[in-house]
Amino acid sequence: MQTTFTIETPGPGLTEFTRDVAAWLPAASGLLTLMIRHTSASLLIQENADPDVQIDLTEWLHRTVPPSTDSSLSYLTHTFEGPDDMPGHIKAMLLPVSLQIPVADGRMRLGTWQGIYLVEHRTRPHRRDVAAHFATDG
Amino acid sequence: MQTTFTIETPGPGLTEFTRDVAAWLPAASGLLTLMIRHTSASLLIQENADPDVQIDLTEWLHRTVPPSTDSSLSYLTHTFEGPDDMPGHIKAMLLPVSLQIPVADGRMRLGTWQGIYLVEHRTRPHRRDVAAHFATDG
Amino acid sequence: MQTTFTIETPGPGLTEFTRDVAAWLPAASGLLTLMIRHTSASLLIQENADPDVQIDLTEWLHRTVPPSTDSSLSYLTHTFEGPDDMPGHIKAMLLPVSLQIPVADGRMRLGTWQGIYLVEHRTRPHRRDVAAHFATDG
Repeated sequence: MQTTFTIETPGPGLTEFTRDVAAWLPAASGLLTLMIRHTSASLLIQENADPDVQIDLTEWLHRTVPPSTDSSLSYLTHTFEGPDDMPGHIKAMLLPVSLQIPVADGRMRLGTWQGIYLVEHRTRPHRRDVAAHFATDG
Repeated sequence: MQTTFTIETPGPGLTEFTRDVAAWLPAASGLLTLMIRHTSASLLIQENADPDVQIDLTEWLHRTVPPSTDSSLSYLTHTFEGPDDMPGHIKAMLLPVSLQIPVADGRMRLGTWQGIYLVEHRTRPHRRDVAAHFATDG
Repeated sequence: MQTTFTIETPGPGLTEFTRDVAAWLPAASGLLTLMIRHTSASLLIQENADPDVQIDLTEWLHRTVPPSTDSSLSYLTHTFEGPDDMPGHIKAMLLPVSLQIPVADGRMRLGTWQGIYLVEHRTRPHRRDVAAHFATDG
């Protein structure tokens, strides 16, 4: 059982789509896999209680891997797609491209504070596709 | 087939639980998935020969993402849960939340030096739950 | 259905093996899992259009985690296997050890620009084994 989730992002930061995934799952036990079909955005499971956590994670990524116009990154060569492109690839190297979540009786076995996020690394809004796969326990 | 492993951690660092996982697996081929149900601790497959590797990995994480009282992180806003909380979320963003290991005839196909670890990012000891799923090859 | 891909690496950097994986898959839908059986090399899904991206990713890793002879890493203790060994473990902590890719009718659901890479972290050429698992949808 497979589908595609399409997520609109407003630019850098986390967009939660836990409910979309939960609504798609059948009332069965099995294994859920999500994989993002892009190389400058990521998937992430993180805290969904205090929204400040999402802001801090985004800011840490921005300061650790700044735009390629920053003098600390002057050695980068892939810059013709804009100063946010190569840093986006670097961030996408460090964060998950796929997530696996065991499912029991139709419910993801996430912890109390865990939500599923798409992390946009580019400056402009984007439309991002996430391939989803669910295998029912045999 | 699913279960939960509960791991007691003594504070920051790696706790190996390869044997617990190996003992749970049936004598079958398939795919093992582990997912940690927390957002300030991680899973990791790493070298289990020289324990100094685990110490060095923990120290590198601590120096790269120090406590939020460090002046380099003064921009962080989610600090009310303590100076080790937001750095814990950042480290959990960078390390695996889930692991997948092919299994052949009941044995994980790990390399000679690979062990399965829980990585604690918080300062105090914690009890951490890891959701486990095994799908037998059909 | 399982196999092992063996990849020869020329030293630090990305080696693509998307075609080897594609050729191995049956004409079925299901879930592909790849897991590297080493702790100083990684797997990665990244852009396969402009090769400069691969060079920049490798250079960023090298500057962010330099050889352990660099004064910034003088606290490391696991150094007897050479100045590229402990940095290799650190990089392997940050990049994926396993990848999961949904497959539809024998084709991986990768995005247009996504390729599958092995990332070598050691200085010398190595032979690296990647465990592969494919589960057909039931």
